[in-house]
Amino acid sequence: MLITSLENERIKNYIKLKDRKYRKKTNTYIVEGLHLVLEAYKSGNLIELILEKDEVLPIDVPTVYVTNEIINKISNLDTPVNILGLCKMSDSNEIKGTKILMLDEVQDPGNLGTIIRSSVAFGVDTIVLGNNTVDLYNPKVIRATQGMLFYINIINKDLKETIKELKSLEIPVYGTKVEYGEDVRNFPSKDKKSYGLVVGNEGNGVSSEVLDLCDKYIYIDMDEKVESLNVSVATSIILYELNR
Amino acid sequence: MLITSLENERIKNYIKLKDRKYRKKTNTYIVEGLHLVLEAYKSGNLIELILEKDEVLPIDVPTVYVTNEIINKISNLDTPVNILGLCKMSDSNEIKGTKILMLDEVQDPGNLGTIIRSSVAFGVDTIVLGNNTVDLYNPKVIRATQGMLFYINIINKDLKETIKELKSLEIPVYGTKVEYGEDVRNFPSKDKKSYGLVVGNEGNGVSSEVLDLCDKYIYIDMDEKVESLNVSVATSIILYELNR
Repeated sequence: MLITSLENERIKNYIKLKDRKYRKKTNTYIVEGLHLVLEAYKSGNLIELILEKDEVLPIDVPTVYVTNEIINKISNLDTPVNILGLCKMSDSNEIKGTKILMLDEVQDPGNLGTIIRSSVAFGVDTIVLGNNTVDLYNPKVIRATQGMLFYINIINKDLKETIKELKSLEIPVYGTKVEYGEDVRNFPSKDKKSYGLVVGNEGNGVSSEVLDLCDKYIYIDMDEKVESLNVSVATSIILYELNR
Repeated sequence: MLITSLENERIKNYIKLKDRKYRKKTNTYIVEGLHLVLEAYKSGNLIELILEKDEVLPIDVPTVYVTNEIINKISNLDTPVNILGLCKMSDSNEIKGTKILMLDEVQDPGNLGTIIRSSVAFGVDTIVLGNNTVDLYNPKVIRATQGMLFYINIINKDLKETIKELKSLEIPVYGTKVEYGEDVRNFPSKDKKSYGLVVGNEGNGVSSEVLDLCDKYIYIDMDEKVESLNVSVATSIILYELNR
């Protein structure tokens, strides 16, 4: 099917997916570029392939061909690519596994995407996005994940409820704090087998009400001139250590 | 001194500092917000303080008071702050110390800023920005450093020349590579005392001509589904391990 008009209903709907509310309503979102489209396809999340009209990608998914002008309107990139995909959102809302990462109001899309990528690298089973955390399907988040969002269970859930649930499963919960707590290098192996790790907002860290529910606090030893690390870096180093 | 006109020469020059060439010509740049201004002051890099007219900051630096309209024109932020500073660039062009980080065409300002922050945290002495690496004084870089750029020696230098110099000083040079090489967890202590570490471009990694000059290659062990980590995360984990 070749579509050339910006007035086409299907095209109008693709463009509306720039809006978070419309993404939520339809449970769909757009990914851009060959790499992300192939990752979405391999993981069974690709519903439609959207190609610029001379482009070829022989995968078995309903394909819509469009003009360059239309691609530019759908795209969120400054320099649009010629391969896009329509994906369905994950419908998971359950904690799976025993290595759980909880994000408390992480705001920056690049940070969330990078954290997802590192979480897959270092064996996290479920990522829980607490209230007021940036939208998983924000285009900048998706790009920063490099497609890794398709390989991990990610759910939205209140962190206080999540921690209650983890406690009922006898999974210990660790909060990150710049001061006090235990140096992550000294964590014994037995405390790494299952965990709930909470990391916090870029400016404020983990909120005090969530910290109050944690069993232990973790910090990363570093030069005293540095108040804190970037949250995606700190999270990645701790996950790397817990996976050690 | 209170300035209220956008036509004032000093104000025009502040605004021109958004342009990299003008920054280079004058060897100055703007920092924004109380935290960065204070870090610049403490480290002796603050030349002038620029305050919105009702603002007070009692530090001993020539101070220019301006209107909100002027602040908005000088600022690089979507939501400008009311405290800015004019800083002088570092005039260092020499490698100092024995723990050297080299960046080969890192492009993203947030990544460079985050790497600088982690470098101070984990004991790097000098950061060498190779050709085609993003400008250190890009406003987004400065913000992402959280002021840590004032606490570390950062120079611009060709990486092939840098590696030659390190070899003449008997400092071993490690390249980062996703495949092969040595797991950073297994690095012996003797190989951590002094080092030159090269990390590469977001998409392409370290260029092959630079890799050819390295003594050893380092990688981070991770789940095979993940092709690579974000460059600021990978760099930070390796620096964390080399500082262990």
